[in-house]
Amino acid sequence: MSSNAATAPALYRPESEVLLASTFGSQPIWKARLEERGLTVRLPGEDVSKVELGIVFNHPHGVLDDVPGLKAVQSLGAGVDFMMEDPGLKGRGVPLLRIVDPLMAERMATFCVWATMNYQRKCDDYFRAQMESRWDKSVENYKNVDNRELRVGVMGLGLMGGQVARTLAGLGYEVSAWKRLPPSSGDSSSDLARVRVYHGEEEFLTFASNAQVVINLLPLTTETRGILNARLFNAMPRGGAVMNLARGAHLVANDLLEALASGQLEHAVLDVFVKEPLPPTCPFWLHPKVRVFPHMSSVTDIPNGIDQIIRNRELVLKGAPLPLGVVAEPGRGY
Amino acid sequence: MSSNAATAPALYRPESEVLLASTFGSQPIWKARLEERGLTVRLPGEDVSKVELGIVFNHPHGVLDDVPGLKAVQSLGAGVDFMMEDPGLKGRGVPLLRIVDPLMAERMATFCVWATMNYQRKCDDYFRAQMESRWDKSVENYKNVDNRELRVGVMGLGLMGGQVARTLAGLGYEVSAWKRLPPSSGDSSSDLARVRVYHGEEEFLTFASNAQVVINLLPLTTETRGILNARLFNAMPRGGAVMNLARGAHLVANDLLEALASGQLEHAVLDVFVKEPLPPTCPFWLHPKVRVFPHMSSVTDIPNGIDQIIRNRELVLKGAPLPLGVVAEPGRGY
Repeated sequence: MSSNAATAPALYRPESEVLLASTFGSQPIWKARLEERGLTVRLPGEDVSKVELGIVFNHPHGVLDDVPGLKAVQSLGAGVDFMMEDPGLKGRGVPLLRIVDPLMAERMATFCVWATMNYQRKCDDYFRAQMESRWDKSVENYKNVDNRELRVGVMGLGLMGGQVARTLAGLGYEVSAWKRLPPSSGDSSSDLARVRVYHGEEEFLTFASNAQVVINLLPLTTETRGILNARLFNAMPRGGAVMNLARGAHLVANDLLEALASGQLEHAVLDVFVKEPLPPTCPFWLHPKVRVFPHMSSVTDIPNGIDQIIRNRELVLKGAPLPLGVVAEPGRGY
Repeated sequence: MSSNAATAPALYRPESEVLLASTFGSQPIWKARLEERGLTVRLPGEDVSKVELGIVFNHPHGVLDDVPGLKAVQSLGAGVDFMMEDPGLKGRGVPLLRIVDPLMAERMATFCVWATMNYQRKCDDYFRAQMESRWDKSVENYKNVDNRELRVGVMGLGLMGGQVARTLAGLGYEVSAWKRLPPSSGDSSSDLARVRVYHGEEEFLTFASNAQVVINLLPLTTETRGILNARLFNAMPRGGAVMNLARGAHLVANDLLEALASGQLEHAVLDVFVKEPLPPTCPFWLHPKVRVFPHMSSVTDIPNGIDQIIRNRELVLKGAPLPLGVVAEPGRGY
């Protein structure tokens, strides 16, 4: 309506463009939606002289190096690790922005509940029996493992980890969580009444020894790289399960293969990999104790994501403060 | 302790025996546990002259006909349909007893949450892609179906149906339920604040038209036999899923196969069958849209079941009233 047009602030500055660089196959969808909202979207290799905002996910490093007017870089998801690892952004001082969406946390919680129950009730074993037309009552042997009997440990207590822990606890599982920083640092653990929270390196192995299922939702930082390794697996109760839903580099793949071979671990769910798409030669694909997913456990909601990107861009161009949690802190990693 | 022995009522009457007759493979486990509690357990074909309680699950009809002193028949599960169908029990006037255990309701709720999420997030399609070492982002196509977007309809609002509906609603699904009898008949629907409850034949198709996922937890009676049929499937939104977790005879198998072939239904989860074990020639085994389970969605908890059987037997022998819900009502079917 023309009356709104007169009073609303100018959201669209034709002279300020964005550079979109994602290796996710959804890039054409994002491009179309950003253009629908009036933005001029450049892709890598195009003229970036008027670009002020980079919008990226697992972008090829270097594509932001030659953007002279870069004011901020926006992730298409909750993670910013691929920005922190980009040498061309180091020391450049531009804020790194993330999507902060409770809907993504619910999507992740749904996936984690599914994965926990799929392990608890041995649904993959039933599927394999079905494929052989085999009525097999020995899979659970006339006994369902009850929710209260299963100890689930969540690594990371950000928006996603907090929601996953709360949801599982609400279903009656015995839930604990581990975070890197001490409890005073202001996180979502205050409303986790039914979740036992462990902190820091000194409580890590105690946390592990109490978790039959470990769900990793940590940000990827120097400290958390390779944290899913033999030391963790060996501290867990024998026969447990590990679910990596954060970043591929959290996992030491050979340690996982050895733990599965020895029976120390019974099951793994992997949604993220150092190299995506996962190469067809990777042994995880056909491993009978591993479920592989193509980085889909919690997808950014595109309508909410577009709204947040439009809002963040406007605030950046105005020089105004951004909403809580949007600007990544290098020390925290998200 | 001897002081207890002096004051406790005599739980064990050596002259009153039980007849155990189950076609479930767990019969030896139940026999051993009943004997541990001091009961003399007879099996079909043995001397039943001192038997006063039958303990059965899908028993061969006829085995109770020649038990002269039969005072009651106890199911090993929540259902009593196999007793109601036993011609030798018709008109005999012995009470039919069931297990009433909230833990079984939680087990069923866990299975239903798993099955709902497994359909919602297309986890079987991801599994098939994995078996071909195929990184397939087109399965969900960069969009997770959210809990609030999925309409789940629960048929039956007994102990199990009520718990399933409450649990799914608590996770944010849009849940409705259908029961045969009008709302005044005293059921668990009063605490189902977030569940829309439909009643009776006149609201059945409206219920169906609002359920993308239908979960059947009805008792098997004359009225409910074959209720999962083409009329229901065709009233559902196209592309939905049906989960039969109650009794095999609720389902018209050919109607399901046709609905899956036409695409009217996309998915089915079957845990119960008219003939169990399901014969290896059944087309459900290798159907790409069907998950087959060997009647394990909610198993009777053996310790709780033994406690209830011991208690019920004692009350029957005393002629005392049984706990609420234990005695099946022929008109209600459970």
